Amino acid sequence: MRILLIGATGLLGNAIMNELKEDHEIIRAARHNADVEVDVTKPDSIKKMYQHTGKVDAVISATGSAHFGPLKEMTPKLNEISIESKLKGQVNLILLGMDYVNDAGSFTLTTGVIMDEPIYQGASSAMANGAVQAFIKSAATEAPRGIRINSISPTVFQESSEDLQNFFPGFEPIPLSKVALNFRKSVEGVQTGQSYKIY
Amino acid sequence: MRILLIGATGLLGNAIMNELKEDHEIIRAARHNADVEVDVTKPDSIKKMYQHTGKVDAVISATGSAHFGPLKEMTPKLNEISIESKLKGQVNLILLGMDYVNDAGSFTLTTGVIMDEPIYQGASSAMANGAVQAFIKSAATEAPRGIRINSISPTVFQESSEDLQNFFPGFEPIPLSKVALNFRKSVEGVQTGQSYKIY
Repeated sequence: MRILLIGATGLLGNAIMNELKEDHEIIRAARHNADVEVDVTKPDSIKKMYQHTGKVDAVISATGSAHFGPLKEMTPKLNEISIESKLKGQVNLILLGMDYVNDAGSFTLTTGVIMDEPIYQGASSAMANGAVQAFIKSAATEAPRGIRINSISPTVFQESSEDLQNFFPGFEPIPLSKVALNFRKSVEGVQTGQSYKIY
Repeated sequence: MRILLIGATGLLGNAIMNELKEDHEIIRAARHNADVEVDVTKPDSIKKMYQHTGKVDAVISATGSAHFGPLKEMTPKLNEISIESKLKGQVNLILLGMDYVNDAGSFTLTTGVIMDEPIYQGASSAMANGAVQAFIKSAATEAPRGIRINSISPTVFQESSEDLQNFFPGFEPIPLSKVALNFRKSVEGVQTGQSYKIY
C-alpha cells in the first residue's frame, strides 16, 4: 500500500514507520525534515500536502499537540492549543483528505488513555481525544467507497521520558512497538469506527 | 440554591426550569428574552454574564449549537459551528465560571446520545459531545473547593419535532421531564465527573 504518515518524525511516528516500512511505501509528512512538510493546524497546509502526495491507500496521523496544565490556570486561549492541533488538526485530515484516499482505503488517527483515565493537568488533551474518538465513530458510518476510519488510543510509552511517565502513576507503560502493531491492525484489517485501546 | 441556567429559553431549558423552580432560585440566561443575555461563543459575553449574576451554587448548561450535515459535504468551517458553540461554549462556562461558583457547588453540561450511537449527519455534533464528556471527566478531578462537574447525555425527546425524531430510527424517545430529573440528580447529588446517560 501507499501510506501517508503524518507526524512521521516523532517517537510514535518512527515506531509506526519501523512497523510498516518493509511491507508498504511510506510517505513521511511532518512540520520539518520529512518527504512532505505540513502544519496540520492550517487547512491550507493540509490541502497542499494532499495535492503534493496525490492518491494514497491509507492516511495515518501520529501528530497533534495538546495543552497540559492545571485546570485552575487553564484559559480558553490555552485550551485552543489542543483544539487547533490534536482535535481540528486530525479531524481536518479526514475532512480534507477523503478524495485522496483510494477505494477501501483507511484513515487512522491517534487519541490516548487520558480521555478514559484522567491524569493531573490533562483535561484539555483528554477533551481533544474524546472529540476525535466520537467523530471517528460517527464519520465511519458515512465514509464513501469502503473507506474505513479508526483511532488508536495508547497509554504512556515505555520509551517516554521519566518526567512524562511520572504523570501516569500506576499506569503500565507499553512498548511503542505494541502501539505500532495496532496501526497495522487498523490499516490492513477490516474494522471501521473503532477506537483501539492499548491499555 | 441559586442556580444559573444557560439556554433557559429552549425546549430542554424550559423542562429543567419546571423541574427545579419550586425548590431553587433560577437565574435564566439565554441569547435573548432571559434574565441575563449571553452568547456562549464569545468568552467576553460569558465573563459579562458571570459579573452580572455574581456567585451561584450551580451552573447548568442546556445550550450549544452544532452542525448537522452529510460527512461528504462537511468542511472545516462548517465543523467550526459545533466547536465554537457546543464544545467551547460549554467548556468555557467552566473555565471562566469557576470563581463564581460557591464551595461544594456544581457545573452540569449537556451532551447527547449520538456520541455513543451515531446517526446520519451527526459526526460534527458527536465530536463536540465526546469532547465535553472527556473534558468533564478529567476536569472534575481538579475542581477546587468541592465543586462537582457532570454532564447529562440524553437521547431524542418525545417532545422533539417529528422531523428530528426521524433522524433517530429505532431510538426510544424519552420525555423531557425524565431528562430534567437527571439535572436535579447532578445539582443536588454527590457525584462528580459523571456522564449521566439517559438511554
